[in-house]
Amino acid sequence: MTRTVVESRSKTVTIGFDQPFCVIGERINPTGRKKLAAELEAGDFSTVEKDALEQVACGALMLDVNAGVVYNSNPNPNETEPPLMRSIIELVQGLVDVPLCIDSSVPDALEAGLAAAHGRPLLNSVTGEEERMERVLPLVKKYNVPVVAISNDDTGISEDPEVRFAVAKKIVERAADFGIPAHDIVVDPLVMPIGAMATAGQQVFALVRKLREELKVNTTCGASNISFGLPNRHGINAAFLPMAISAGMTSAIMNPVRPQEMEAIRAANLLMNNDAHGAAWIRANKPPAVEGEAQAGRGGREGRRRRRERG
Amino acid sequence: MTRTVVESRSKTVTIGFDQPFCVIGERINPTGRKKLAAELEAGDFSTVEKDALEQVACGALMLDVNAGVVYNSNPNPNETEPPLMRSIIELVQGLVDVPLCIDSSVPDALEAGLAAAHGRPLLNSVTGEEERMERVLPLVKKYNVPVVAISNDDTGISEDPEVRFAVAKKIVERAADFGIPAHDIVVDPLVMPIGAMATAGQQVFALVRKLREELKVNTTCGASNISFGLPNRHGINAAFLPMAISAGMTSAIMNPVRPQEMEAIRAANLLMNNDAHGAAWIRANKPPAVEGEAQAGRGGREGRRRRRERG
Repeated sequence: MTRTVVESRSKTVTIGFDQPFCVIGERINPTGRKKLAAELEAGDFSTVEKDALEQVACGALMLDVNAGVVYNSNPNPNETEPPLMRSIIELVQGLVDVPLCIDSSVPDALEAGLAAAHGRPLLNSVTGEEERMERVLPLVKKYNVPVVAISNDDTGISEDPEVRFAVAKKIVERAADFGIPAHDIVVDPLVMPIGAMATAGQQVFALVRKLREELKVNTTCGASNISFGLPNRHGINAAFLPMAISAGMTSAIMNPVRPQEMEAIRAANLLMNNDAHGAAWIRANKPPAVEGEAQAGRGGREGRRRRRERG
Repeated sequence: MTRTVVESRSKTVTIGFDQPFCVIGERINPTGRKKLAAELEAGDFSTVEKDALEQVACGALMLDVNAGVVYNSNPNPNETEPPLMRSIIELVQGLVDVPLCIDSSVPDALEAGLAAAHGRPLLNSVTGEEERMERVLPLVKKYNVPVVAISNDDTGISEDPEVRFAVAKKIVERAADFGIPAHDIVVDPLVMPIGAMATAGQQVFALVRKLREELKVNTTCGASNISFGLPNRHGINAAFLPMAISAGMTSAIMNPVRPQEMEAIRAANLLMNNDAHGAAWIRANKPPAVEGEAQAGRGGREGRRRRRERG
């Protein structure tokens, strides 16, 4: 059974077919978040702190950390991103104890993150591009960490799922040449928007099944991409996630603050027999203690005393 | 491609892997509904009328009709159910134009329903029990209708999905002996409560996939059974249905009045590429025209006029 083990200083999370779905919180990422980008350039980490705490409180098992901001004062991310990645990782792992996912397209930022992170973080990511594999896979080997493998290569992102499978296979094989085992590769098969490609859902489900059955690897995705451009995106995401999970998807980089998606994942864990005795489901769906009941509960002793006083 | 065609007088519904999921409304059924049972014995069909209209308005593509009430005045359903089935079917098909599913364990009630129904109803059901097959399959052949095949037999309901598959296969083969094609058999693989059997979800998904791939038959189920006994049943059902659909389930007998489940099904149709151009999804999720916006829209001419009057 394939198991990808990630660790913080004190916590171990296992990604696997027999494990609850691994929700990787996506919020600590300045891409498309102008306010956060400006804050980071000004050295203000308050939003990062809030995002770290809130995502873990909402049930994220890991946090993705992306420091991909282009400073107004310095447009070269090769210079600015590595120290920022280090700062954010140090901050986040001081606040929460979940394992981290170090997310960058700048190799030096990946290395800075690896040097700063406690335990065994997940590296995000390598692609099937030659230059990228040659730069990132040695880091994966040196630090002995698992890595997200995105199934595009020097020819770009193929619309043909067979090509995307072949790229994933190539990365797994190249990793093996470096002595990296398949269970440390978490493949991202690339989720296309269903609004742009009507077969995007079926493609991912088939691809995830094939990756599971033939390459025996864990998988991840940017889940919300499926609903891009359509109304009621949470409704689409909340059906997509259970369908992907039943096909064999074992993790996703997503927003854990959204209750509809998180409920769908808890239900899917239950339905995949990855929630022993339904304990997590029942805990999450306990009727809230209403004031009247709490009073009735206290009422036993206090109520009797008052009645006696009155009598 | 497997297609099960059902018809009312004016409407054709096709159950198939390339079709939107077929929601069969379950509400017209006195089992466990004391008030409805009492009304039916008293000849009061007002709840049936309301249930028929409401279920179709909520998106049911077919309606199940079950007349399984045990009268206080006559405890023999073999006498009371056939005329009641006929009455309800005549009433319902006078109110709504969706195809019907004739649901009874009393063979004479099935036959009374077949005689009364317009078009090509779905018969519900035959099992793998010898006596039942010998009694129901000739009706299926005589009336040239599709039939729900429940995968239990004279030995009961097996907990082993392989046995349930074998029972389904036996019914399909026996039906073939009667000249009934496999595309007119809609197999119910039997959904067990996940609270009682932790593998119930995975069992159904595997069984539906095998029924689709090997027997090439359509499938149905009593969907809400999966969540029996657990809190927040709609949350479980709303994840179960997309998972079952992605495994190949093509219909369910369920309550279409529940918005959470219906939204999950619409999203699953979209994700399975059975909602051309996302038209049904977009229609169902159009933002409602709010009063303020309508006023703003009107405001162009009227607003200017008022401003002029004020000026």
